[in-house]
Amino acid sequence: MVASDQSILERRVIPTEASAGPEHVIRRVIDLSNDFKQAASRRGVRLTGIGIGAPGSIRAARGTVVSPPNLPGWTEVALVEPVSRAAGVPVTLDNDANAAVVGEFWSGAGRGTRDMAMLTLGTGIGGGVVLNGALWRGRHENAGELGHKIVIPDGRVCKCGQRGCLEAYASASTTAQRACELIAGGKRSSLADVVSRGETLTSKHVCTAARAGDALAREVWEETCRLLAVACVNLQHTLNLERIILAGGMSAAGDDLLRPVREHFGRQMWADIGDRPEIVLAELGNDAGFVGAAYLAMKHAGVAVGATTGGR
Amino acid sequence: MVASDQSILERRVIPTEASAGPEHVIRRVIDLSNDFKQAASRRGVRLTGIGIGAPGSIRAARGTVVSPPNLPGWTEVALVEPVSRAAGVPVTLDNDANAAVVGEFWSGAGRGTRDMAMLTLGTGIGGGVVLNGALWRGRHENAGELGHKIVIPDGRVCKCGQRGCLEAYASASTTAQRACELIAGGKRSSLADVVSRGETLTSKHVCTAARAGDALAREVWEETCRLLAVACVNLQHTLNLERIILAGGMSAAGDDLLRPVREHFGRQMWADIGDRPEIVLAELGNDAGFVGAAYLAMKHAGVAVGATTGGR
Repeated sequence: MVASDQSILERRVIPTEASAGPEHVIRRVIDLSNDFKQAASRRGVRLTGIGIGAPGSIRAARGTVVSPPNLPGWTEVALVEPVSRAAGVPVTLDNDANAAVVGEFWSGAGRGTRDMAMLTLGTGIGGGVVLNGALWRGRHENAGELGHKIVIPDGRVCKCGQRGCLEAYASASTTAQRACELIAGGKRSSLADVVSRGETLTSKHVCTAARAGDALAREVWEETCRLLAVACVNLQHTLNLERIILAGGMSAAGDDLLRPVREHFGRQMWADIGDRPEIVLAELGNDAGFVGAAYLAMKHAGVAVGATTGGR
Repeated sequence: MVASDQSILERRVIPTEASAGPEHVIRRVIDLSNDFKQAASRRGVRLTGIGIGAPGSIRAARGTVVSPPNLPGWTEVALVEPVSRAAGVPVTLDNDANAAVVGEFWSGAGRGTRDMAMLTLGTGIGGGVVLNGALWRGRHENAGELGHKIVIPDGRVCKCGQRGCLEAYASASTTAQRACELIAGGKRSSLADVVSRGETLTSKHVCTAARAGDALAREVWEETCRLLAVACVNLQHTLNLERIILAGGMSAAGDDLLRPVREHFGRQMWADIGDRPEIVLAELGNDAGFVGAAYLAMKHAGVAVGATTGGR
């Protein structure tokens, strides 16, 4: 539960129990809404709306979720209608990645900007673009797929089927995967010990080994940062943004990620232009999604939300 | 002179005589304005505003031209103020590339869209992005530099100083240049005859030879089209546009350009998404710039301009 001044009033984490089917999940969302209504009433505040961030493809205008990858058996399930009917307040629905972008924009690392983008570095690479203070959705609501911008034409095959996507090189998973491939190819690295112990190699292992001076890890980590910087250069030439936010699990690397991305950006971008975007780390972590969903719900309900021009 | 219904009423082409200095050029622009005022009066129409598209970097808000590449000795020259004072109507100023994008959007190949981009393939590669029916300028009015998106990280050095820009491979000039380099490197091609005749090799030679089956020309032309398609894929993933327009001198190649760019786009972009942008050729040629400048002037003057939703 988020107030219009950006403060987080209540937090609930519940399992979706998706295997029990859509009706059961919708029932749980309605129960959660009622729980929040009571919490609001106890606090003497008014619940003005409910924002839902759902995984995968959604149809915002229809209020439906379209076959989300982690919810098997769901094919275009109406979420907005049953929840708003039961809760008696307006309900908005958006993609969880979009919601996270909006959350950082409103209340996190994007505060004070009008024009920004975010790259969410996890298993894949999600993204989003905010222009003139609003999420840019595009013609068919498919904008902001920044992980599937091609950075190496005809390069590595991506899970999406394209070749050479940013996601095929610079996500947390593919960063680890590139290291594994080099080790499997016989290259020496301290990371080989992780693999031979039977552990799953992660981007965190790569980052830590790179910092400790492991040559292979350094090569892999630098490549990740170089290609993230290429994506930032290309965003800048296309949209001339104020800020680009690095988010997701891999952004926990902090300065070990930020510093080389900024350096590669500086080396690759026009030297003589003073209008570089700030490249920064996300601030809200896992809160970004529900904070953003709440913001979208408040905007929809006509609530005057805290301005984004005050921060930083 | 352009009417609000998109019809072109009068055309004047005069040399700038830039070597005589800024004051002389401004005098000539004022004379031209007076000429148009008289023409308007003869036709019984009202001149509501004047739009100027100037080369190089401009400061729209200040109404100044900042050291344009083809106008030596100009350093932030005020254009809007003297012309509007002399002409007695509002004057708008924009970059000539932006004006051309707006011209195609309003009255050419972009008619009927809200969200589109244009790649202008000439000596360099210019560009522009229209979102929600307006030119997207970005934080420091530097958006739409689509020729300087990096397509081959650490690739060929571009005139702009970056490496691997689209412009370094796929402009009219660099397409010809890549062919020259291969020939100079000893590769056989019918294009060698052009060079040995002392002619300057152009992208048109490359295109014509590729159509005639010359292997080297075909390789070079395909690479140009492949990388233009990469740029289109990346625009689409970022912005989810309705249409992408190929303009500039090289677009005279017509279907010889359009077909392979579309094919490469189809091969590189997600197969299972129905929301591909139309990739089309520009329609207005050299008229695009002044038509767009006129549109911007009319919008500025509050004239109801012909809607863009009717066309195609």
